[in-house]
Amino acid sequence: MMQKPNPNSTAEDEDHRVVRRIQRLSLHLTPLGRLPPEETPLQLLTCARVKLNVNASLLSDYMRGKHREIQERIFEFFNSRPDLQTPVEISKDEHRDLCMRQLLALVREAGIRPFKYVLEDPGKYFAIAEAVGSVDMSLGIKMGVQYSLWGGSVLNLGTKKHRDKYYDGIDNLEYPGCFAMTELHHGSNVQGIQTVATFDPSTDEFIINTPNDGAIKWWIGNAAVHGKFATVFAKLMLPCKDNEGVSDMGVHAFIVPIRDFKTHHTLPGIEIHDCGHKIGLNGVDNGALRFHSVRIPRDNLLNRFGDISRDGKYTSSLPTANKRFAATLGELVGGRVGLAYSSVGVLKIAVTIAVRYSLLRQQFGPPKQPEISILDYQSQQHKLMPMLASTYAFHFATLYLVEKYSDMKKSHDENVVGDVHSLSAGLKAYVTSYTAKSLSICREACGGHGYAAVNRFGTLRNDHDIFQTFEGDNTVLLQQVAADLLKQYKEKFQGGTLAVTWNYLRESMGTYLSQPNPVTARWEGEDHLRDPNFQLDAFRYRTSRLLQSVAVRLRKHSKTLGGFGAWNRCLNHLLTVAESHIESVILAKFIEAVQKCPDDNTRAALKLICDLYALNRIWNDIGTYRNVDYVAPNKAKAIHKLTEYLSFQVRNIAREFVVAFDLPDHVLRAPIGLESEAYTHYTQYVGF
Amino acid sequence: MMQKPNPNSTAEDEDHRVVRRIQRLSLHLTPLGRLPPEETPLQLLTCARVKLNVNASLLSDYMRGKHREIQERIFEFFNSRPDLQTPVEISKDEHRDLCMRQLLALVREAGIRPFKYVLEDPGKYFAIAEAVGSVDMSLGIKMGVQYSLWGGSVLNLGTKKHRDKYYDGIDNLEYPGCFAMTELHHGSNVQGIQTVATFDPSTDEFIINTPNDGAIKWWIGNAAVHGKFATVFAKLMLPCKDNEGVSDMGVHAFIVPIRDFKTHHTLPGIEIHDCGHKIGLNGVDNGALRFHSVRIPRDNLLNRFGDISRDGKYTSSLPTANKRFAATLGELVGGRVGLAYSSVGVLKIAVTIAVRYSLLRQQFGPPKQPEISILDYQSQQHKLMPMLASTYAFHFATLYLVEKYSDMKKSHDENVVGDVHSLSAGLKAYVTSYTAKSLSICREACGGHGYAAVNRFGTLRNDHDIFQTFEGDNTVLLQQVAADLLKQYKEKFQGGTLAVTWNYLRESMGTYLSQPNPVTARWEGEDHLRDPNFQLDAFRYRTSRLLQSVAVRLRKHSKTLGGFGAWNRCLNHLLTVAESHIESVILAKFIEAVQKCPDDNTRAALKLICDLYALNRIWNDIGTYRNVDYVAPNKAKAIHKLTEYLSFQVRNIAREFVVAFDLPDHVLRAPIGLESEAYTHYTQYVGF
Repeated sequence: MMQKPNPNSTAEDEDHRVVRRIQRLSLHLTPLGRLPPEETPLQLLTCARVKLNVNASLLSDYMRGKHREIQERIFEFFNSRPDLQTPVEISKDEHRDLCMRQLLALVREAGIRPFKYVLEDPGKYFAIAEAVGSVDMSLGIKMGVQYSLWGGSVLNLGTKKHRDKYYDGIDNLEYPGCFAMTELHHGSNVQGIQTVATFDPSTDEFIINTPNDGAIKWWIGNAAVHGKFATVFAKLMLPCKDNEGVSDMGVHAFIVPIRDFKTHHTLPGIEIHDCGHKIGLNGVDNGALRFHSVRIPRDNLLNRFGDISRDGKYTSSLPTANKRFAATLGELVGGRVGLAYSSVGVLKIAVTIAVRYSLLRQQFGPPKQPEISILDYQSQQHKLMPMLASTYAFHFATLYLVEKYSDMKKSHDENVVGDVHSLSAGLKAYVTSYTAKSLSICREACGGHGYAAVNRFGTLRNDHDIFQTFEGDNTVLLQQVAADLLKQYKEKFQGGTLAVTWNYLRESMGTYLSQPNPVTARWEGEDHLRDPNFQLDAFRYRTSRLLQSVAVRLRKHSKTLGGFGAWNRCLNHLLTVAESHIESVILAKFIEAVQKCPDDNTRAALKLICDLYALNRIWNDIGTYRNVDYVAPNKAKAIHKLTEYLSFQVRNIAREFVVAFDLPDHVLRAPIGLESEAYTHYTQYVGF
Repeated sequence: MMQKPNPNSTAEDEDHRVVRRIQRLSLHLTPLGRLPPEETPLQLLTCARVKLNVNASLLSDYMRGKHREIQERIFEFFNSRPDLQTPVEISKDEHRDLCMRQLLALVREAGIRPFKYVLEDPGKYFAIAEAVGSVDMSLGIKMGVQYSLWGGSVLNLGTKKHRDKYYDGIDNLEYPGCFAMTELHHGSNVQGIQTVATFDPSTDEFIINTPNDGAIKWWIGNAAVHGKFATVFAKLMLPCKDNEGVSDMGVHAFIVPIRDFKTHHTLPGIEIHDCGHKIGLNGVDNGALRFHSVRIPRDNLLNRFGDISRDGKYTSSLPTANKRFAATLGELVGGRVGLAYSSVGVLKIAVTIAVRYSLLRQQFGPPKQPEISILDYQSQQHKLMPMLASTYAFHFATLYLVEKYSDMKKSHDENVVGDVHSLSAGLKAYVTSYTAKSLSICREACGGHGYAAVNRFGTLRNDHDIFQTFEGDNTVLLQQVAADLLKQYKEKFQGGTLAVTWNYLRESMGTYLSQPNPVTARWEGEDHLRDPNFQLDAFRYRTSRLLQSVAVRLRKHSKTLGGFGAWNRCLNHLLTVAESHIESVILAKFIEAVQKCPDDNTRAALKLICDLYALNRIWNDIGTYRNVDYVAPNKAKAIHKLTEYLSFQVRNIAREFVVAFDLPDHVLRAPIGLESEAYTHYTQYVGF
């Protein structure tokens, strides 16, 4: 091998740098859609490179939600305002300030008014939240605290008098507010909160008190710095007639002013702590609130589900404390819908960065041949292609959830309410857990360059991490899904109606509970394995079987352990039932979306990635299928083989699949120009 | 329910705060060993609470390595020096400064001299690295760059002249240095690096050049700020006799001064960039190096494996470029050993924090009874108990690896070299991947409070993340293990000797390749399932079977795809073989450690957690076992049931198991006092 040394002079180098700088700038202008088309087919790989003739822009059109326009306005606004972009390094306090400025600019300068859509057009609200969250997730959450939590509690739990008084201030950000539910000792168990609001008939006021340290309101967004008001959840205490004590009427929500409107000083009796640094989302000012006999007018009770008259008489349209509590929390499911939706947005960003890098990065290759793209390694396909398929699956499932939620907000149909409650809990838990894991896989799949802050995996992971916990801990939410499934299961046997997404259980429970068919258990042809009927049947069989067996186990253990003990004894089993059900719903929606696609080539591409989603899931749980002989050994092997093959086929159009997400370039990396010259190299030579 | 309101006056509150502050301070002095003993047995849980009578301090004695004393010196030194503790919020530049000050203080004030142990007593070196990394992982890595990479390259790749010249300066930190191997376009494929070192006989020098942007040395620790020297890996180019070109002699290492010794200015021809922010480890100053015809004396070639004479004649004790390359890289496996070892240290910290919190945190409970500890939920046990078991397993496996490595450094026995090479690759890959996943699980298992920066999950995860990539990408390392297994497999059939950790393959390959015994496949008694012979047999059966089948597949595909294509076609399969083998080795070492334990009660505790490790692994892969009928359906069910039962039993002594890790309190949370008052609440009421 012969080479000439090629020393560069300093002047040349200066020229070279200028050229590079220009190239970099031009690269900034290159939308992802213009990622260079791939050229080299890899003959060395086994499977024929039968590339589907898919048109990325047709696929993109099919994926675009109807609120894409407002998202683009948001992207363009922040892209045009470097002063509002979050730098890679920023202190907690600066980040909090910036985040507030970003929100103010969004509302007052870009003219995006999210509050209006919270009730009117939730789909649009969630689209705004997703776009804003892609710019900086702290901003997404800050916005959610203001409009969905604080604002939402006023709209959903209050009555006209509250709306009249607070609507404009919340909308235009003159009334920044908090949502004070969680306490230091009670997060998941909201009914266990200990803050009290005691009615004082002599002054017509409530007295809010924090009885002990464990009852301090904790993690309250907007509390540490910006909030003027808080919706405080507390046990409503009513003085007994003999004035010798109080009766606990259960958890209610109250509007409590926490800072002076003009001076912004903390009001008397309010003690505010700063919750300090978090793993991520440091642009959100989480604080702790402690109340020392804080007096608020009776009117500050958010009285939609329960009220008190001037003479201290309690009235409610709902008969029991439990029903009122359920109705109160029921109004707050919008947060879960939004988190599931935004989590898919995060997943899209991560998958796009990882796939784009894996297409461009080359390493190793056959002897004496050029190095190959790392996406051509089976191991890399194994990491990323099922993830890409899941992203598509979740996209359609969460769109469906948003539609259902919007319907519910209009119709208040009781069946839809139950359905949305359980579906939002399940999808939020399932999707956010999946995205959290995927962010780590994406970073790892991009090697050392994945570790550079500019690529965003770190920030995305740190910010998204808590999606698994807030608005309901995932493990707790999945139990709600399981409980609901068991209720439906019981009702089925009592002849009642089933909620819409549970319909498959009605149809199939009988057939699914019989032994699997030993003939079909051996079918292994590609046509059969790619038949949506087989795939759906497999998913639903698993759910039905798990559901039936857990019901039997619960009944058995209840006798000796009581309800709580039996539930705990079957907890892992119950979580598996819930996940299995959610996967069944996701697959059903994905199959529907494939079938509805009008363009032949696009539909073929979607069918391909849908098959990958389905078969990969079946393979991941092959032990369960084998244990009940739903799948014979030869079929298990065929499923595995086909999954690898489909991963390879999806890899061949992976570029088109990520281009269709249509993400602006500046969302795919941290703001450039704020860091050293070295970033040039990433954008230009590494592919981020 | 009747309650009296209890308003606090401000004066009372002030008193209260003082009391809390004192309580907090006393808590700081409470070592983890004095975590309050548990009281309430949970009758509501099914399994009898048969608590093993285990003594945490005996268990701890058995776990303590022989280098615990020097680790305690390090912990005490940093605990006594608040000025050297890394605050929760720190800018990149401040962190880099602090990290250098920490290292200087360690060496010059605490009198810890790691360099001496790199060759003399590697076990002690790794113990220092683990302790230092627990204080701040940036410091652990900074130390590793200086002593193991830069220092280690001089010791291991150089000869006496280099040691004489550089030893003292490296040891006392007057010569901070870099290890410049990775390039922008070449990380895993080190043989593909493009930097050249051309010998110039006219001046007796090498000319170091970066031929293109992709060849810029990238991610080089110590380069951005502190380094004076760099060991640069480059292709040695020897002018041909006719002076018409150069011959490429393969990758060699060269000492290149990069900054002026007195002024610290960058030397002529050297271009240094800053790699900027990373996801974590921002205390390490990673930089990029570009060389423009930099001349260094011939003596700066690290010439242990290849040398050039004054007249440009190349000599080497090794016959080929490939052998020289292998020998060069072979000397660098110490880094992998250290990472595997430190990764277990990180896992211990995370598991301890999560278990401690889960014991103290209570949420929900049976109707009208007190709330229960969240570790009493089956789902929480499922998340944390197998992880605790794996931590124990990895502890013994990495201790074994360190012993082997130390032997190798003394004996240079060729069999041991091969063994250590493969074992260090495998354990590094397996353990760091597991720890990375576990850090996310621990955070999630601790809910919202797990998201507070004070609890360290964020920093640990961000810092540890890259352990999966540096010193060899995990996916690449596992392939080395697989390649080695295949080599051993071939040799077995050719009658050669097997490396020590592979001995089981020799013994068993014959029996394992026959069909599983249909009688034992149905055995489901607890005695059988907890028999180490069954467990080892299950692990080894899987490895042998996978190895045999991949060998067959590779042979088949090689015919049509060639070696590279066939390897890629079987890549997922190969990675599974490698992981399965590593798990077999881990289990074997764990079983040995249990058997060697002298105290009966301690041994029983270790046996319990070892059984959990083994059965949980088998259950996780139950599909594989079922597919080949190694395990019948009834046995699969019994394994699952026993795994849940063992998790519950381990939970009953979980406190003792984490206490035995003997971690100082200040390692289990970020430095306190640097953040807001709110942290009081964590330490006091939340349990971090």
